[in-house]
Amino acid sequence: MAMEAVNLKKKQCKIVVAVDESAESMYALSWCLSNLISQATINTLVLLYVKPPPPVYSSLDVAGYIFSGDMIRALEAYGNDLVNSVMGRAEDICGKFSSNIKVDRIVGSGDARDVICNIVDKIKADTLVMGSHGYGFFKRAILGSVSDHCAKHVKCPVVIVKHPEKI
Amino acid sequence: MAMEAVNLKKKQCKIVVAVDESAESMYALSWCLSNLISQATINTLVLLYVKPPPPVYSSLDVAGYIFSGDMIRALEAYGNDLVNSVMGRAEDICGKFSSNIKVDRIVGSGDARDVICNIVDKIKADTLVMGSHGYGFFKRAILGSVSDHCAKHVKCPVVIVKHPEKI
Repeated sequence: MAMEAVNLKKKQCKIVVAVDESAESMYALSWCLSNLISQATINTLVLLYVKPPPPVYSSLDVAGYIFSGDMIRALEAYGNDLVNSVMGRAEDICGKFSSNIKVDRIVGSGDARDVICNIVDKIKADTLVMGSHGYGFFKRAILGSVSDHCAKHVKCPVVIVKHPEKI
Repeated sequence: MAMEAVNLKKKQCKIVVAVDESAESMYALSWCLSNLISQATINTLVLLYVKPPPPVYSSLDVAGYIFSGDMIRALEAYGNDLVNSVMGRAEDICGKFSSNIKVDRIVGSGDARDVICNIVDKIKADTLVMGSHGYGFFKRAILGSVSDHCAKHVKCPVVIVKHPEKI
């Protein structure tokens, strides 16, 4: 299908960029904007942020911590602030590049590996762009790299971008 | 460095595409030509083909097979024909797209995973594009996926493309 679409004048192109708090994911977004956005296509850029799953709170309960309703609301508010901060930064970066882009936001919740794969397939994205790290050293050691998993399971082409300063 | 180069009028862009006998690698090349080649950059596309390492012959000797000089020369000639056939197909595909591309060939020899990583770093490529499979089911099961390895070890962004019919 994609092969045939190549010959059309103005094809639609939907690119998902997985963003998080890391400088690397912002670098991946910049790379995408300067290398994957073509004037020959109608581009939709989907900024995808995945919040950790809610069971994080209950596992803390089991360990003996008791959270008041206020505390849980405060944690949730912090989570929402984080989403807005990351999305805001990402949109600022988009604004510095071509105006030939429609920018959408999707906020998912759960295991980043599964959520990213599911959303990319569900919205029929043409390309997924993401940093190679993200989610910290320990989580990666236990769960495996998010980008490895997505490169294996997502149907569309996957671009894995490393932050040049961290190599 | 790449971040700063974004603002230059005509930056150089060197893209390596790892090609082999598979339809998937030819699809990855097409994807690259229609998504990564920009009119705003001076593009060099490097077609990289990796031949299996020479010790393949000697391991057969150990197993009790004796190859005459003629046989070895015939195998080598077959290997060279394969290189020319793959490179010829790849150049035909390049010819169908924009003429705004300089196409180079590099033929390496050895373990594809190491050779691809070494060459990409040595020639300071901006992007590596490759199929997600290649090198057959059994070799992948034993050695691990070539694309997994390259995504982990190459410094530049890596694009992993899956053949849409094989998903």
